[in-house]
Amino acid sequence: MRVTPTSNAAAHTADCVIFGFADKELRVLLVRRAVEPFADEWVLPGGAMGSDETLEATARRVLLDMVGVKNIFLQQVATYSEPDRHPVRRVVTTSYYALVKPHQHTPVARGHASDASWHPVANVPPLGFDHHRILVDAHDRLTWHLRTRPLAFDLLPERFTLTEAQRLYEDIIGEPLDKRNFRRKIQNYDFLVETKEKRSGVKGGPLLYRIDRERFSAALSYPR
Amino acid sequence: MRVTPTSNAAAHTADCVIFGFADKELRVLLVRRAVEPFADEWVLPGGAMGSDETLEATARRVLLDMVGVKNIFLQQVATYSEPDRHPVRRVVTTSYYALVKPHQHTPVARGHASDASWHPVANVPPLGFDHHRILVDAHDRLTWHLRTRPLAFDLLPERFTLTEAQRLYEDIIGEPLDKRNFRRKIQNYDFLVETKEKRSGVKGGPLLYRIDRERFSAALSYPR
Repeated sequence: MRVTPTSNAAAHTADCVIFGFADKELRVLLVRRAVEPFADEWVLPGGAMGSDETLEATARRVLLDMVGVKNIFLQQVATYSEPDRHPVRRVVTTSYYALVKPHQHTPVARGHASDASWHPVANVPPLGFDHHRILVDAHDRLTWHLRTRPLAFDLLPERFTLTEAQRLYEDIIGEPLDKRNFRRKIQNYDFLVETKEKRSGVKGGPLLYRIDRERFSAALSYPR
Repeated sequence: MRVTPTSNAAAHTADCVIFGFADKELRVLLVRRAVEPFADEWVLPGGAMGSDETLEATARRVLLDMVGVKNIFLQQVATYSEPDRHPVRRVVTTSYYALVKPHQHTPVARGHASDASWHPVANVPPLGFDHHRILVDAHDRLTWHLRTRPLAFDLLPERFTLTEAQRLYEDIIGEPLDKRNFRRKIQNYDFLVETKEKRSGVKGGPLLYRIDRERFSAALSYPR
């Protein structure tokens, strides 16, 4: 259906900015379009909202299809509604971001995509549509959330030291953090559980921590 | 046009959460619906996105119609897409918040509204649609933004003391702030200009400050 200029109807899509952290580098999952418009160009994975589906459900469906990820923290970022953002018809899109471990999630190109792969956020190819702006906004939001929310704990191994947690945050945010402030902040998290074990191989080594999953989920959902 | 269950078409609206601060109380502008559904109930002011309009332009149009406000800081909050959120047809809505001085903006009931007035956020009437949730989300976002952004400076008089600024923030957020932290933070704002004048009537009284409008606008737009 081609929308006529006088119609207010617009298709609605969800676009996913799937961040993955690996080898000290923040990456984003991109797909190469197999169809027009923007054929052969890289874009964010996305899909059209179904008639009985919320936008978040659409985003979760895209995530499951692309990288087989379920039950992950998904954050709505923004809605883009410029009348000419899609060259063929009017499409309003809502973006979501997620943060995953790339080595656990091999992307699969499906549907309108001929390729799917992880790209360093610091060095992405040109993107079709307004997806560069959507990526930049989602990255800004992720960085901002990381300062106030324990998002990145999901990327740590089962047991970790506080120094490892700080390094991870610094690598993702891209700047050093004050050790005392960092520790004071994260030690307020009730999901952080001291294991009584120490890092093996290091004499008198640092204590290991783990995450209480239930409390962690609660911590992620507030504040928005 | 009634949307059939198999159609993906959805109408798109912008709903405005217009906060006003007066008499030490945060208020929100509500309108009483004159039409079904939810006739006679209070709701947030909103409007349908026009075919050549962005959602932000829709929100600005609603703001101008309701309270005659132009050129104001408007923040997109979230998009709501539950298939049954509107009882008659499928309507996806995107919310925006603004923060204004109520006494400068007398609300005007127009269009589908029979009444328009300011209500204390702490004591709102039941709202139609999912507008209570939209209000709560916008209030959360406002509170969060106030901790990292100089939003409330717009509500201060032309010249103000740092103590007045802190009181205003405390009244809106609803809790006391540490004086030293507050001052350290706001004195980093490059839009804060010391006037060399002192509060009259107070011997050796505190210095007055004003806002550099241009720098203030820049400060509001980052970070998102």
